[in-house]
Amino acid sequence: MMRRSCLAAICLAAAGAALAIGPSDRDKPPTTTQVMESAKPLDWRRPDPANTLYMELPGGRVIIELAPRFAPLHVANIKQLVAERFFDGLAVVRVQDNFVAQWGDADKARPTPTALRKIPDETIVAWGKGLPFIKLPDPDGYAPETGWIDGFPAGVERKPSGQAWITHCYGVLGVGREDWPDTGSGAELYVVTGQAPRQLDRNIVTVGRVLRGIELLSSLPRGTGALGFYEKPEQRTAIKAIRLASEVPIAERSNIEVLRTDTPLFTQYVESRRNRRDAWYLVPAGHTDVCNVTIPVRDVK
Amino acid sequence: MMRRSCLAAICLAAAGAALAIGPSDRDKPPTTTQVMESAKPLDWRRPDPANTLYMELPGGRVIIELAPRFAPLHVANIKQLVAERFFDGLAVVRVQDNFVAQWGDADKARPTPTALRKIPDETIVAWGKGLPFIKLPDPDGYAPETGWIDGFPAGVERKPSGQAWITHCYGVLGVGREDWPDTGSGAELYVVTGQAPRQLDRNIVTVGRVLRGIELLSSLPRGTGALGFYEKPEQRTAIKAIRLASEVPIAERSNIEVLRTDTPLFTQYVESRRNRRDAWYLVPAGHTDVCNVTIPVRDVK
Repeated sequence: MMRRSCLAAICLAAAGAALAIGPSDRDKPPTTTQVMESAKPLDWRRPDPANTLYMELPGGRVIIELAPRFAPLHVANIKQLVAERFFDGLAVVRVQDNFVAQWGDADKARPTPTALRKIPDETIVAWGKGLPFIKLPDPDGYAPETGWIDGFPAGVERKPSGQAWITHCYGVLGVGREDWPDTGSGAELYVVTGQAPRQLDRNIVTVGRVLRGIELLSSLPRGTGALGFYEKPEQRTAIKAIRLASEVPIAERSNIEVLRTDTPLFTQYVESRRNRRDAWYLVPAGHTDVCNVTIPVRDVK
Repeated sequence: MMRRSCLAAICLAAAGAALAIGPSDRDKPPTTTQVMESAKPLDWRRPDPANTLYMELPGGRVIIELAPRFAPLHVANIKQLVAERFFDGLAVVRVQDNFVAQWGDADKARPTPTALRKIPDETIVAWGKGLPFIKLPDPDGYAPETGWIDGFPAGVERKPSGQAWITHCYGVLGVGREDWPDTGSGAELYVVTGQAPRQLDRNIVTVGRVLRGIELLSSLPRGTGALGFYEKPEQRTAIKAIRLASEVPIAERSNIEVLRTDTPLFTQYVESRRNRRDAWYLVPAGHTDVCNVTIPVRDVK
């Protein structure tokens, strides 16, 4: 059987070959495969269980990392909702192709004895020296600067507004709201499952991103109602439970690591995405955008 | 029941309300809903049946518009493959999350008595006065200019290369290949189903885009093998048939229209996407990218 058409440089990774670098290759910047093969244990990090959600769906577990630095009040409230078991038995109510999957209490019928239903706006955080911003060298049309903060894709406007925010990339978790910014509480959440809807940046509160299992959301049948809402309750996908990883017995946790974004290796990784050097590519782009840099996640023991 | 959290300005469209424009609104640029409500019949076009493919899947029909201006030899060969009934009974063999769905003769086992298996490279076309390029005013990191040509999202580099190409946006159809540019024939095709992989631009031949039914591809289960290939043949989704619309009896054709991209209305439409004026938005982006402008398609009698 002949080799399948691979489309992309990751074919090399798939082939599993450790590439021998010959003398003529020494001057070339490394490929993504070569960068990742050179990663050391400290280039990876374990997500904090106290800020990691497990969303248990019939098809498996979606692992979400929360972003307390960006939306502390919303993240705290989502944890409170989780502690109340608010999401258990609710459902994914909306899947709009090339946009979002959304779940929660669409009918606002479920009580929240301890969690809030109204929270001050947290669409942005103040830019400041404390923010560990790793800047992407490429320009971006939606933000003066982009890069990563705490491993989350981020936009920054130092002046005049002095703002930073999570950019709406594939997998980012946001808080559904009505027309006014303080009308979301986390009782309805969405994950981006299409072309980065960057027009939402600074318009809605973002609280994290999916680390694993997004395919359990992105491959759901699309809703046929307006905005991709399901028209019949039986079309919805039930949420068995949402738990904080730190609440789950250690034996039942998912042991994963995420590539750090604040290392020299990550800089090399980004460069290998900006200019693909693999044999498949004819023309390196010399550019990438923050939403086109997928951050590797791996299983560990 | 309270209104659902809508996330986006299209809530207005969903509500189906014809918006009354009061005196205070007269100076505001129109919203997307308002632009679309003002569209005239001539703002729409019917895709040419001689360049439209119907891909019949168990879940329904995927409608694809071919782009003969961009890849005339490949488009002709794909039509030849279709005439041979080459794709009928083959399958979607690869679905990689946030990247592509791919189908065709992965094992290169099926004969092609009249179609070619080797075609000269057509990754770009020469830039020239004849190209009806509708330019997007916003900058783009991957191309000196972007916009639309024949309704397809396009990149342009007038100098030094003098090239134009279809940009890899959601829904774009491309030709799988091996490491060398003339190793694709159309016997394996892919559709982009994730964040625009613009690094593929000018690296692989693009031949069209999906107008309708992409959710039949984008919601398929993800392959668990390397690169999203299915590991077992029974996981694949069978292709019942691929036909040229002009070959299909008129009564069985899908009657759709696509918004023209070469009209003043389309310019208004793009502006309404660059700066969302709907009540939901707090901060208009003042920018869009070519892959974030979805081109409306509608059913007609």
